[in-house]
Amino acid sequence: MSGGTAGTGGRLDGRVERGNQTRRLVLRRTVGIASVEGLDALSLGRIAAELNLSKSGVFALFGSKEELQLATVRAAGRIFLDTVVEPAREEPPGLGQVGRLCANWLAYSEDRVFPGGCFFYGAMAEYDAREGAVHDAVVDAARGWTGQVERCIGEARDAGDVRADTDIGQLAFELVALMETANAYSVLHGAPDAYRRASSGITARLRAAATDPELVPQLP
Amino acid sequence: MSGGTAGTGGRLDGRVERGNQTRRLVLRRTVGIASVEGLDALSLGRIAAELNLSKSGVFALFGSKEELQLATVRAAGRIFLDTVVEPAREEPPGLGQVGRLCANWLAYSEDRVFPGGCFFYGAMAEYDAREGAVHDAVVDAARGWTGQVERCIGEARDAGDVRADTDIGQLAFELVALMETANAYSVLHGAPDAYRRASSGITARLRAAATDPELVPQLP
Repeated sequence: MSGGTAGTGGRLDGRVERGNQTRRLVLRRTVGIASVEGLDALSLGRIAAELNLSKSGVFALFGSKEELQLATVRAAGRIFLDTVVEPAREEPPGLGQVGRLCANWLAYSEDRVFPGGCFFYGAMAEYDAREGAVHDAVVDAARGWTGQVERCIGEARDAGDVRADTDIGQLAFELVALMETANAYSVLHGAPDAYRRASSGITARLRAAATDPELVPQLP
Repeated sequence: MSGGTAGTGGRLDGRVERGNQTRRLVLRRTVGIASVEGLDALSLGRIAAELNLSKSGVFALFGSKEELQLATVRAAGRIFLDTVVEPAREEPPGLGQVGRLCANWLAYSEDRVFPGGCFFYGAMAEYDAREGAVHDAVVDAARGWTGQVERCIGEARDAGDVRADTDIGQLAFELVALMETANAYSVLHGAPDAYRRASSGITARLRAAATDPELVPQLP
């Protein structure tokens, strides 16, 4: 309960804050479960039981399984932005930034920021052939990531690091393909060389597109 | 029932044959369901209801949900071999065979031989981070496919089409990455240019590895 001196506003604020804390607690748990078992494995009852919360409390916060799934996709998207996209912006536009974005992604997958590997790889395969709000949210996230890679390459071209005749969509497609396949092989059968293969392929693609191969950063 | 003139053997043969027919009927259905909704969506009761069979009959044939899932992975593997791998063997070893293998795969995905796109892409993402017999069967299938691509490139090198210093594992990884990502983008958001991008990337990789670029076949 809120402190004795607080008026109605204080009690409401306290309740809202506790609700937000519970939301964060739930979503920390659901992004992990979904990355291993899939978004379909989420249910209000299971989450309540696992976190020792009342089912009605979890229901009050999320309303339905679909809302819980959508909130989980959004929470995973924020973690992805914070881990992969934002830190790359510390580099000025150019091939250094493109290389940093790819290196961040490979580390995000290899370090298992989500225990099941890239959250969106699993969600994409789970919801690709279905319809509905969860499918749409996953599509938006996947498009957002490819769009981010394309923008980053486009800025590198504007900065003079990437040759003007480069097909940006094609290069972004190939970089994303190498990253996602490294994640898939590593998670599926622990292929130890998958990240090295992806780094090596990404470096070769960036060298081929660079105005000067020296501009391509060393990937880990 | 079997014909009146048949002895016990005939009745048994008839029963076995009817069992095999039902097995094939069930598996035709389950590979489609699993490619759209995942292997977890398979259950003996659902399949029996959808195909108007008795649940005990389906149970007698498969025994458990896991057996049904494993039989479904095997059935999908046979369809994959018949559609992608076997027809490529019509070409003699060389870059023509490598190109045919990749073209067959892209057509297998784009033509939706399975309604949810590549069967194994979905199964991999669904079972990658789990343990058990279904995970192991999916890992075997994925390894088998990469191994097939590696063998085919190795034979092309032995035939003198591929440069001796080519890193076969790396090239196979990159070709598979382009194919699987085309499938993922097409199924997820109908990206119309995904297969063209994959073809274009595969052609570039094969040209870079070829002893003579003229040996690289035109991909559709």
